[in-house]
Amino acid sequence: MADTSWTSSAKSLKGVILDLCGVLYDSGEDGGIPIPGSIEAVKRLKASDLKLRFCTNETQASREKFVAKLQRMGFDISVCEVFSPAPAAVAVLKDRGMRPHLLVYDGLLSEFDSIDKTNPNCVVIGDAAEKFSYQNLNDAFRVLIGLEKPVLFSLGKGRYYKETDGLKLDVGPYMKALEYACDVEAEVIGKPSSAFFNSVLHDMGLQPHQVLMIGDDLVNDVGGAQHCGMKGLQVRTGKYRPSDEKHPSVTADGTVDDLAHAVGLILGERAGPL
Amino acid sequence: MADTSWTSSAKSLKGVILDLCGVLYDSGEDGGIPIPGSIEAVKRLKASDLKLRFCTNETQASREKFVAKLQRMGFDISVCEVFSPAPAAVAVLKDRGMRPHLLVYDGLLSEFDSIDKTNPNCVVIGDAAEKFSYQNLNDAFRVLIGLEKPVLFSLGKGRYYKETDGLKLDVGPYMKALEYACDVEAEVIGKPSSAFFNSVLHDMGLQPHQVLMIGDDLVNDVGGAQHCGMKGLQVRTGKYRPSDEKHPSVTADGTVDDLAHAVGLILGERAGPL
Repeated sequence: MADTSWTSSAKSLKGVILDLCGVLYDSGEDGGIPIPGSIEAVKRLKASDLKLRFCTNETQASREKFVAKLQRMGFDISVCEVFSPAPAAVAVLKDRGMRPHLLVYDGLLSEFDSIDKTNPNCVVIGDAAEKFSYQNLNDAFRVLIGLEKPVLFSLGKGRYYKETDGLKLDVGPYMKALEYACDVEAEVIGKPSSAFFNSVLHDMGLQPHQVLMIGDDLVNDVGGAQHCGMKGLQVRTGKYRPSDEKHPSVTADGTVDDLAHAVGLILGERAGPL
Repeated sequence: MADTSWTSSAKSLKGVILDLCGVLYDSGEDGGIPIPGSIEAVKRLKASDLKLRFCTNETQASREKFVAKLQRMGFDISVCEVFSPAPAAVAVLKDRGMRPHLLVYDGLLSEFDSIDKTNPNCVVIGDAAEKFSYQNLNDAFRVLIGLEKPVLFSLGKGRYYKETDGLKLDVGPYMKALEYACDVEAEVIGKPSSAFFNSVLHDMGLQPHQVLMIGDDLVNDVGGAQHCGMKGLQVRTGKYRPSDEKHPSVTADGTVDDLAHAVGLILGERAGPL
């Protein structure tokens, strides 16, 4: 039986953060397809008095491009509402005066146009997929091992994701490979990093206890948000697996079938008893 | 000043195990070149009353092929004296009735000719170099994650090695990638595994304290041998780095400039005072 005790806190909510892939849509080579009911659910949240932001570890396309893709699918979403690792990385690099060697998907390169990349003093890796060739990983390794103090930034640390043609390795395994090769620990930019979630909360002007995160990734979405003091709700779409509900270290505040059901429960609770 | 206190135990030695790459020769795209004095040093050991074996984590060519390469360089060496991970892996696979999905260098495939590879129930990875494409690593990942109980064998766990054109990622980083992706721990076959060293000792018919390991890799050669109860000597050739002499957890029983010097000291000590 579904545990709906989390809905009792819905009345005190001021904002909601949504993950994108696996919550709004399922990805695939064709660009992906909306999850039934999710377009309407986003509309309902936007029409409510709740603040809404989107928080993704998507790093295969620039923010502009994948927001345009979501708009074409029918979602009411704009670039300034979306938080993704690449713009956060650019801010960190500028702040610390670092010049990256990039190992990222071609579609993401434009995000780093404003950054000096000559004579690199750090490495940034994202979900590079087919670009994770031996040669490219070895090039990144050589840059890192040649630095007096190797600095490795990883855009997320997901293990794998699901596309229409099957499971695909995410950036995390390659982060581990470079960590081991160079005996360093990567700095993760993106979920589940607290710095990343806090930047979203800062933009919303809200405290953690006022915000609910909804995602399909138990560790990176739910666990990461909970670690920051938010509540975390898992949907049974995207990469959700039944074993998540018995996870040894992360327990979602609630688990619901999909975003449409989550939004229905939240808004229903806020409307109060009939 | 060189610490030569280890030579006091040379008189009680019954056998010596030599690493190959970085001790006998330096590898490179052209096949590699002998390290000065090493051909003569092997000859001197063979002419002595010490038992001699060779122990390598080489997994880019079959044992037959790289022994032939060493013979062409001028080394007195035969296949039955050489221990390498692939034949050890074949023995383990047969013993446990396992059918591998192989992610290894093309040159190594023939070692596995006698093994059934249909409907795989484990993954074996070696130093696959350019074959570590995203597609190939993802294929190995899909096999592993699809198994009820994923079993991953790694032929060694080296971080990187040096070729004439620079450093190259070894199998270890890719082992770490698959371990993280599938939340498993790989079984390492090859140095520094104790099972691997013990199989060499068994073949020699000697006890660990009677045998000295000589290698350029502080952790895998020296540390691995010491863990088995042997003494371990590091040569300052191959992948040796000065920082090895201040390593936090592994201290060689001795460090010498190269194999020729090591053999000179051992045989000189055994000959006794003039």
